Amino acid sequence: MLENKDQSRTSIGELGEFGLIDHLTKHFTVTQASTLKSIGDDAAVLDFGSKKVVISTDLLIEGVHFDLAYMPLKHLGYKAVVANVSDICAMNATPTQITVSIAVSNRFPLEALEELFAGITSASKFYGVDVIGGDTTSSQKGLIISITAIGEANLEDIVYRNGAQATDLLVVSGDIGAAYMGLQILEREKQVFQVNPNNQPDLEPYTYLIERQLKPEARRDLKELFEKLELKPTSMIDVSDGLSSEVMHLCKQSGVGCNLYEEKIPVDPQLINVCEEFNIDITTIALSGGEDYELLFTIKMEDYGKIKANPNFTVIGHMTQESEGMHLVTRANTKIQLKARGWNALED
Amino acid sequence: MLENKDQSRTSIGELGEFGLIDHLTKHFTVTQASTLKSIGDDAAVLDFGSKKVVISTDLLIEGVHFDLAYMPLKHLGYKAVVANVSDICAMNATPTQITVSIAVSNRFPLEALEELFAGITSASKFYGVDVIGGDTTSSQKGLIISITAIGEANLEDIVYRNGAQATDLLVVSGDIGAAYMGLQILEREKQVFQVNPNNQPDLEPYTYLIERQLKPEARRDLKELFEKLELKPTSMIDVSDGLSSEVMHLCKQSGVGCNLYEEKIPVDPQLINVCEEFNIDITTIALSGGEDYELLFTIKMEDYGKIKANPNFTVIGHMTQESEGMHLVTRANTKIQLKARGWNALED
Repeated sequence: MLENKDQSRTSIGELGEFGLIDHLTKHFTVTQASTLKSIGDDAAVLDFGSKKVVISTDLLIEGVHFDLAYMPLKHLGYKAVVANVSDICAMNATPTQITVSIAVSNRFPLEALEELFAGITSASKFYGVDVIGGDTTSSQKGLIISITAIGEANLEDIVYRNGAQATDLLVVSGDIGAAYMGLQILEREKQVFQVNPNNQPDLEPYTYLIERQLKPEARRDLKELFEKLELKPTSMIDVSDGLSSEVMHLCKQSGVGCNLYEEKIPVDPQLINVCEEFNIDITTIALSGGEDYELLFTIKMEDYGKIKANPNFTVIGHMTQESEGMHLVTRANTKIQLKARGWNALED
Repeated sequence: MLENKDQSRTSIGELGEFGLIDHLTKHFTVTQASTLKSIGDDAAVLDFGSKKVVISTDLLIEGVHFDLAYMPLKHLGYKAVVANVSDICAMNATPTQITVSIAVSNRFPLEALEELFAGITSASKFYGVDVIGGDTTSSQKGLIISITAIGEANLEDIVYRNGAQATDLLVVSGDIGAAYMGLQILEREKQVFQVNPNNQPDLEPYTYLIERQLKPEARRDLKELFEKLELKPTSMIDVSDGLSSEVMHLCKQSGVGCNLYEEKIPVDPQLINVCEEFNIDITTIALSGGEDYELLFTIKMEDYGKIKANPNFTVIGHMTQESEGMHLVTRANTKIQLKARGWNALED
């Protein structure tokens, strides 16, 4: 979606690949001391001294991961960076650089790519990451974005998915499910718009949910908070595919089971209202929605005091022996087996 | 192109995203000491101690960068790795890890992806790089491959594009133009096949050219050779887009001009024969063809003795003052201005 539809448009073919790269990347500045060489050579050069290097990568496809009908390109650029920065945060590392590759079909004018890169620039500034390289090419259909994020950490600070123990507490930051519900609202509005383009939607009751969908933030703040609390999670993952799926990843990779308590899952009041309006079960949304980019982690039981009074965190369950399985304990106190109903890009 | 067309096919949707990733990545083994954590977490963790980290990334789109009608998937996987490893070699660094992300439409059965990953595995073994992560998702159309390559180097060994001086010699490894001509032959055979599927092509006279197109190799060997020769290039780039375009990159980034001598450009005898057969000017192919993955570099004039007798290298020109411009000196000894006619993915 181009925000200024009446502007004159410039064909990207006119600029050529190198011209386009120069044009789109000229606003990227280097702020990280570890960035020795950025865009403009065969590869970027980084220096992490005695720190460890953490790397993650993501591929976003139009029509699969995003719909430009309700996702403005600037927001898309921002969110693409956030999704990758979030993976680095989930290692308890500090994001430092990203590479950004895009492929676009001819239907995108230069101004559309400028919007996308404005969002990428905005996010890279907010998170303090340098854009150090990438690739720009054409696609046969739609927009494709591939981002690789790089971070640094001391070895002793890095948190993997596989360190949870059988008695650890399961903790999540922020609240869950809002981003998915924001998407449902945007899809409903898209359908309303298709029927009546003059309809002015009142999105006021949904602002938080829509913001969580269109402009999520990665929990880059938690690493510092963990340090202040003198707390090191035993395992950690970010909530990108859905809480249920992420809990199962921690369990399987750590070789433990878990009890997740339905009543403990933190949800925003706006989500409760909208779930009533849509007549949808809120726990289903919280378990299976995705893109919250909160952090899900486990801590030793004796560390409970360190997070007890902290508004950033909610204890939602505890780990068990692997043989006990992975369960949701409902409000009615029945145990049902957890299923990964999270978002699956490969489903038909 | 699936090589075993009569095998039973497995839908990738059946496996789901995580099942597919597990299935495709289970053959990747870790051999690099610097790989602390590989596939299976939010990010990989690397340790380069006091060495510098070099990173490059590439995005390959079906119908833009490759045509599955004549590019077997196994070769495509191999070549995708080579293209990225080549960028690391062009920094005079040692490739150590790659991440591989793919997006595929439903028309690809699992067996097709296995072929692709067999090629990726084969190249990663040959070049000694660990596959440490990636992303697997669906596309609306065709196959998309995004690879990020990581390498290591001592700071004093790294060679950038911008270090050439006005009197430096311009040198290229191997021979140039064969990969592009291999593509022309494959495209001709594709058209013949479309007219007459029973035609058995005789590709014997073109084996070298076709191999250069379907199974190119990165010049990972040159770093060691430079060390043995006690030679450090002043600037370097890999020949992926075409010699002319790459020479101009070195000139522009170094702030120098150049004289490139037509008669010096190294070409294979098979290329000469086929250019006659196709009635194409061989210099045009050598200047504008791409995907040779040879290294183009500059050396100080006093280092000429170190490469003079070496069959790996050919001096093809020298750098000049920037004000003198960038020229091709023809066999007839006329000077014509260099133009970047190299492959441009964004051209209409």
